[in-house]
Amino acid sequence: MSSDKYLHFENDYVEGAHPKVLQSLIDTNELSLSGYATDEYTKLASDKIKSACNRQNADIWFLVGGTQTNALVIDAMLKPFEGVISADTGHIATHEAGAIEFTGHKVITISGVNGKLIADDVDSYITNFYANPAYEHTVPPGMVYISLSTEYGTVYSKAELEALSNVCRKHDLIFFIDGARIGYALASNECDLDLPTVAANCDVFYIGGTKIGALCGEAVVFTNANMPKNFRTIVKQHGALVAKGRLLSVQFCTLFSDNLYFEISKHAVDMAMRMKEILISKGYEFFIDSPTNLQFIVLDQDKTQKLSEKLKFTFSGKTADGKNIIRLATSWYTRIEDIEKLKDIL
Amino acid sequence: MSSDKYLHFENDYVEGAHPKVLQSLIDTNELSLSGYATDEYTKLASDKIKSACNRQNADIWFLVGGTQTNALVIDAMLKPFEGVISADTGHIATHEAGAIEFTGHKVITISGVNGKLIADDVDSYITNFYANPAYEHTVPPGMVYISLSTEYGTVYSKAELEALSNVCRKHDLIFFIDGARIGYALASNECDLDLPTVAANCDVFYIGGTKIGALCGEAVVFTNANMPKNFRTIVKQHGALVAKGRLLSVQFCTLFSDNLYFEISKHAVDMAMRMKEILISKGYEFFIDSPTNLQFIVLDQDKTQKLSEKLKFTFSGKTADGKNIIRLATSWYTRIEDIEKLKDIL
Amino acid sequence: MSSDKYLHFENDYVEGAHPKVLQSLIDTNELSLSGYATDEYTKLASDKIKSACNRQNADIWFLVGGTQTNALVIDAMLKPFEGVISADTGHIATHEAGAIEFTGHKVITISGVNGKLIADDVDSYITNFYANPAYEHTVPPGMVYISLSTEYGTVYSKAELEALSNVCRKHDLIFFIDGARIGYALASNECDLDLPTVAANCDVFYIGGTKIGALCGEAVVFTNANMPKNFRTIVKQHGALVAKGRLLSVQFCTLFSDNLYFEISKHAVDMAMRMKEILISKGYEFFIDSPTNLQFIVLDQDKTQKLSEKLKFTFSGKTADGKNIIRLATSWYTRIEDIEKLKDIL
Amino acid sequence: MSSDKYLHFENDYVEGAHPKVLQSLIDTNELSLSGYATDEYTKLASDKIKSACNRQNADIWFLVGGTQTNALVIDAMLKPFEGVISADTGHIATHEAGAIEFTGHKVITISGVNGKLIADDVDSYITNFYANPAYEHTVPPGMVYISLSTEYGTVYSKAELEALSNVCRKHDLIFFIDGARIGYALASNECDLDLPTVAANCDVFYIGGTKIGALCGEAVVFTNANMPKNFRTIVKQHGALVAKGRLLSVQFCTLFSDNLYFEISKHAVDMAMRMKEILISKGYEFFIDSPTNLQFIVLDQDKTQKLSEKLKFTFSGKTADGKNIIRLATSWYTRIEDIEKLKDIL
Repeated sequence: MSSDKYLHFENDYVEGAHPKVLQSLIDTNELSLSGYATDEYTKLASDKIKSACNRQNADIWFLVGGTQTNALVIDAMLKPFEGVISADTGHIATHEAGAIEFTGHKVITISGVNGKLIADDVDSYITNFYANPAYEHTVPPGMVYISLSTEYGTVYSKAELEALSNVCRKHDLIFFIDGARIGYALASNECDLDLPTVAANCDVFYIGGTKIGALCGEAVVFTNANMPKNFRTIVKQHGALVAKGRLLSVQFCTLFSDNLYFEISKHAVDMAMRMKEILISKGYEFFIDSPTNLQFIVLDQDKTQKLSEKLKFTFSGKTADGKNIIRLATSWYTRIEDIEKLKDIL
Repeated sequence: MSSDKYLHFENDYVEGAHPKVLQSLIDTNELSLSGYATDEYTKLASDKIKSACNRQNADIWFLVGGTQTNALVIDAMLKPFEGVISADTGHIATHEAGAIEFTGHKVITISGVNGKLIADDVDSYITNFYANPAYEHTVPPGMVYISLSTEYGTVYSKAELEALSNVCRKHDLIFFIDGARIGYALASNECDLDLPTVAANCDVFYIGGTKIGALCGEAVVFTNANMPKNFRTIVKQHGALVAKGRLLSVQFCTLFSDNLYFEISKHAVDMAMRMKEILISKGYEFFIDSPTNLQFIVLDQDKTQKLSEKLKFTFSGKTADGKNIIRLATSWYTRIEDIEKLKDIL
Repeated sequence: MSSDKYLHFENDYVEGAHPKVLQSLIDTNELSLSGYATDEYTKLASDKIKSACNRQNADIWFLVGGTQTNALVIDAMLKPFEGVISADTGHIATHEAGAIEFTGHKVITISGVNGKLIADDVDSYITNFYANPAYEHTVPPGMVYISLSTEYGTVYSKAELEALSNVCRKHDLIFFIDGARIGYALASNECDLDLPTVAANCDVFYIGGTKIGALCGEAVVFTNANMPKNFRTIVKQHGALVAKGRLLSVQFCTLFSDNLYFEISKHAVDMAMRMKEILISKGYEFFIDSPTNLQFIVLDQDKTQKLSEKLKFTFSGKTADGKNIIRLATSWYTRIEDIEKLKDIL
Repeated sequence: MSSDKYLHFENDYVEGAHPKVLQSLIDTNELSLSGYATDEYTKLASDKIKSACNRQNADIWFLVGGTQTNALVIDAMLKPFEGVISADTGHIATHEAGAIEFTGHKVITISGVNGKLIADDVDSYITNFYANPAYEHTVPPGMVYISLSTEYGTVYSKAELEALSNVCRKHDLIFFIDGARIGYALASNECDLDLPTVAANCDVFYIGGTKIGALCGEAVVFTNANMPKNFRTIVKQHGALVAKGRLLSVQFCTLFSDNLYFEISKHAVDMAMRMKEILISKGYEFFIDSPTNLQFIVLDQDKTQKLSEKLKFTFSGKTADGKNIIRLATSWYTRIEDIEKLKDIL
C-alpha cells in the first residue's frame, strides 16, 4: 500500500511480511520459548528446510539479513588468510560496504558473463595461481561465491552449477551460494534447478527470507553436516545472535509450510513476466535478459526523470554510452493492479 | 504462555513482543516503505525518542540486538587502537563472545562494586596510565562503558552517573551506556534518574527493546549530534543494516507512544519486587540487593536441582563457597498469577 | 657473490647491505641508544630525509619492510570503513598476501596503463561513485595508492604525478606513494621527478631501503606534519615497532649521507640500461619498456628452461599467448662483470 | 658505550649486536641468498636450533621482534574466535598495545603469583568455564601463554612447567611460551630447565634474539611438526615477512654456534647477580626476588630522582604504598666496570 504518490517497484523488500508469516508471529507471540536459537521452532523450521532440500544431514542456522550472512559464512568457513572468488559483478564484490574485508578476507574477482561466474574461468584462475612460483605471496582462494539469482536477475543452469561444483571439488574450494533471491531463481521458467539439486551441488547456501516474504531472516544450509564447530559462539562474536530467535524460526516455519515460499516466489516471477511483456511491447531496451523478479531496462536521462515522477525504481549504474540502467522489482505484494498502473505510466 | 511444564523466569526475552508493539507491525505491514533506515517511521520514532530524552540535537539509530550494538558503537566511536574501560563484571567483559575484540579493541577491566564502575577508580586508572613513561606501549583507553541496569540488576545513582560523566570529560573519554535494560533501571524505586538526565550525562547510550517489549531492536542515542560520519556504511560493514528497517522503527514508534516503554518497564519491576518480597519472606539468601527486574539468589545444589524441576531460571555463576547464583527475571509478560505460582514452588 | 653456480638477477635484495651501510652499523654497535625509535640516530636520519625532501614540517618514521609499511600506512591513515584505490596491477592489489584486507580495508582496483594509475580514471571513478544513490552501501575510497617505480618498472612523469595529486585534493583523498624502489625511479633518465617534488605532491610516501642498499628498512615520510596521532602505539599494535630502532635509523643515516642513496640507485639503473642494450641487441622481446632497474622480457618455455640453468630470474606471469614474462633486476651489488657474464649467457 | 653522561641499565636492548653476531653479517654480506626465508642460512640456523632443542621434528621460523611474534603465533594457531589465557601481569596482557586484540583475540587474564601462571588456576578456570551453561556466549580459551623468564624476571621450575603442560593437554589447549628472555631464564641458578625440556613441554615457543645479543630476531619453534599450513602466507599477511631473510637467519646461525647464546645469557645473569649482591649489601628493598637479568627494586620519589641523574633505568609501576618500582637490566654488553660504576652511584 503506497503511503505516497508513487508506484513502488524499487525493490522486493518495500512492504512487510506475507500475511501468513505475520500471522504465525501473532499466533506464537505469548509462548515461552528459549532464546538464542535453542527454541523448538528453530528445530521445526530446520527440519522443514532439510526436507525441502532433501538433505537430512544438513545443518541449518537462521540469521537476520544478507550482508550479515555473507560476511559470517565466509569468515566462519575460510581460514583467516584465504580469499573468496566472486564474479566482478557479484554482490560481495560491489555492494557489501566492505563487510567481507572487515572480517579480513579479500574478495578475488573474475570477470563474469551476464552476472554469472563461469566454471572454466575459475579453473583457469586456480591453475594459473598455483603455477606462479610466488603464489605464497598472494591470497590463496578458499571459496567460490555465486548468487542465485544473480545481481542482474539471471540464473545458473543445472549444467553450469554442476560445472562450478566440480571445479570446486577438483581444487578443494568451498562452494557457497548466496540465495537471498533463490526462490525467484527456482520459480523462473528458465531454471532447471530445485532446492535438492542446489543443496547437492554446494557446501553451503542460504535461503533468503527478507526479500521473499519475511520481515527479516535468512536460512543458512550447511549441506553436509559441515556447520563450523562453535558456530553459536562465532555468530555471537559477529554480533549476529538474536536473543528472541523465534523471530526468525517462526517465520521460516511458515514459509516452509504448505509450499508458501515457492508460491510467493512464483507469484513475484509471474508478475515480473507480465511486466517484462509490457516493457517489450512498449519497445523498452533491456540491459539484460532476466527471467526472474528483477528486470533491468535502459533509459536516457529525460525518460528516467519523467518516470521518476510517478514510479519508484532503482538506479543500477550507467551503460557504456551513458544511459541509465534502471531496475524494477516485484515481490509477494505486487498485484496485477500494480502492473496495470505501471503499464499506464510506461 | 508456557509451552511446557515449567514456570519461566529465566530471562526477559522468553516471550514475543508486547501486544501493542505487535499490533503496530500488523497495522503497517502493507505500507510501502523505503529500506535501510530511510523510512518515515525511522524519522517518527527518532523524533519520539529525542523528545523522551529532551535532546533535540541527538542522532538516533536502530539496531537489532545488544551484542551487535555494543560492538558497533564501540568500534565506530573509538579510534582503532583505543580500548574501552569496563567493570570486570561488565557485559562486554564477560558475555559477548569476544565481539568487542573481534573489532580489534581491548576491553580494559577495572574492579567494580556491586557490578558498578566507580568514578574515582576510573580517574585513578587514567592518571596512573599516563604517569607510566611507557604508556605508548599499552592500549590507550578511549571510552568508558557501563550498563544501566548492570549485569547484577543494580542501578547507578544520579550522583554516581554524574561523577563518571565528569571523569570522562576530564580525561576526554567517550562515555557509553549500555541500556539494554534501561527501562527497568529507570522504573526502579531506587533510581533517581530519567532519560533526559541519562542523555545529558553521556555521549552515547542505547534504549533496549529486545528485553523490554519488542521482538528485537535497540535504539542508539548519540546525545549531541555526534553520530559518526558515514554511519550507514559502518553499520552495513558490520553486517548490521536491516533491509526492512521498518521492523525496528515501527516497534520503537509504538514503545515510545502513550508511555508504553515506561509502563512495560514499571510492570516488570513491580512484579520483581513482589517476587523479592516472597523470596525475603521465605528466607532465601540474596547474592546482591537488586531493585530491578533481575533478582539473584544463592542456592545449594540440592535446592537448585529441586527448583529446576518446575522452574526455569538462569545459572549466573558460583559463590566463593561453591553455591549456585541463580537469576530470576520478570518482563512485560509476567503476570501476578505467575508470581503466585512461583510463590508456591518456592 | 654467488654461493652457487648461478648468476643472480632475480631481484634487488639478493645480497646484503651496501658496505657503507654495514660499516655504520659496526661503528655504532656499542653505543648505548634508547629503544623504540627514540634514539638520536632516528632524529638525525629524520632530519637528513627532511632536508633531502626539502620538507622541514615532514614527520618521518622507520619501518622494517614493504608489506608492513603498506599495510600500516593504509590502516593508520584511512578511516576503518574506507578503501584504497590502486591500479589493478598495483603491488597491494596483487602481491601482499591480503595484508591490506587483514586490516579491514578493501583494495579498489582501476585498470592501469603500463602499470600506472591514470588521474582521469580516478576522477571518473570518484564521480561515478558518488553519482550512485546507493553509494552508502559500497566502500568509500579514502586514499589513492601508487608505487614509484611501478610493479613493471615504469615511472610517473611530473605531469602525471601532479594530475593525480590534483585529483586527490579535489576529492579529498589521501595520496600515498609506495617508494620501495623510489631511488631507481628518480635515477631513471626518463624521470623528471626528484624527492622534493614527490614530497610536495603527496600526503605520505616511503623511501625504500630494503631494495636499495639496506639490510632492511623503509622510511615513511608524512609530508605535512600529518603523521597520525599515537603513531608509536599504532606501530606497536601492528607488531611493527622494533626494540633496537637503531637498526633502521643508523642505516638511513648513512644512506642519506654523501648522496649514497642516489649513487646506489643510479648505479643499479646504469647497470640495468647496459643490460637493456644487450637484450635489445640480442633481439629479445620486451614485455614493457622500463627505464629503471627492473627489466621484463618475454620468453618461450624452451628458452626459459635453458636460461634457468645458469641464471636466476623472476617469473612474472604469462602473456596472452602463453609465453613467460621474465623479470631481471639489478641492485647496488650488480657489477659490470655480472652484466658481461649475463651477456654471454643470453 | 654510553653516548651520554648516563650509566645504562634501562633494558637489555640498549646496545647493538654481540660482536660475533655482527661479524657474521659482515662475513656473509655479499653472498647472493634467496629471499623470504628460503635462504640456506635459514635451513642451517633451523637445524642448529632443532639440535639445541633436541627436536628433529620441530619447525622453525624467524621473525623480527617480540610483539610481532606474540601476535602472529597466537593468531596463526588459535581459531579466530578463541582467546588466550595469560597471567594478569603477562606481557601480552599489559605491554603489547593491543596487538593481540588487533588480530581479534581476547586475552583472558588469571591472577598470577610472582608473575607466574599456576597450573591449578588454569585447570579451575577451564573447569568452571565449561560448567557454565552459557559458556557459548563467552570466549573459549584455546591457548595458554606464559613467558620464560616472566615480566618480573622470575622463572618457572620444571615441575611448574610440566604441570602447565599437563593441564593444557588435559583440556586440549595450545601451550605457548614467550621466550624473548629464555636464555636468561635458562642461565639462572634457580632454573632446572633446559631447551629440550622446554621444547618437550609446549606446542610452540620462541627463542629471543633481540634481547639476547642480536640486532633483531626471534626464532619460533613449533615443537612437533605443527607449524600452521601456509605459514609463509600468514606471516606476509601480518606484514612480518622479511625480504632479506638472511638478516635473521645469519644472526641465529651464529648465536647457536659455539654455545654463544648460552654464554651471552650466562654473562648477563652473572652481572645481574653481582648487581643483586650490591643492592642487597646496600640495603635496597626488592620488589620481587628475581634470579635473572632483570632486577626490581623499590624506591621513594627522592631516591628515584637522585639516581635518575646518573643512571638510566625503567619505571615499572607503583607499589601499593605509592613507591616506585624500578627495573635494572643487564645484557651481553654489561661489563664488570659498569657494575662497579653502578655500585658507586648506588
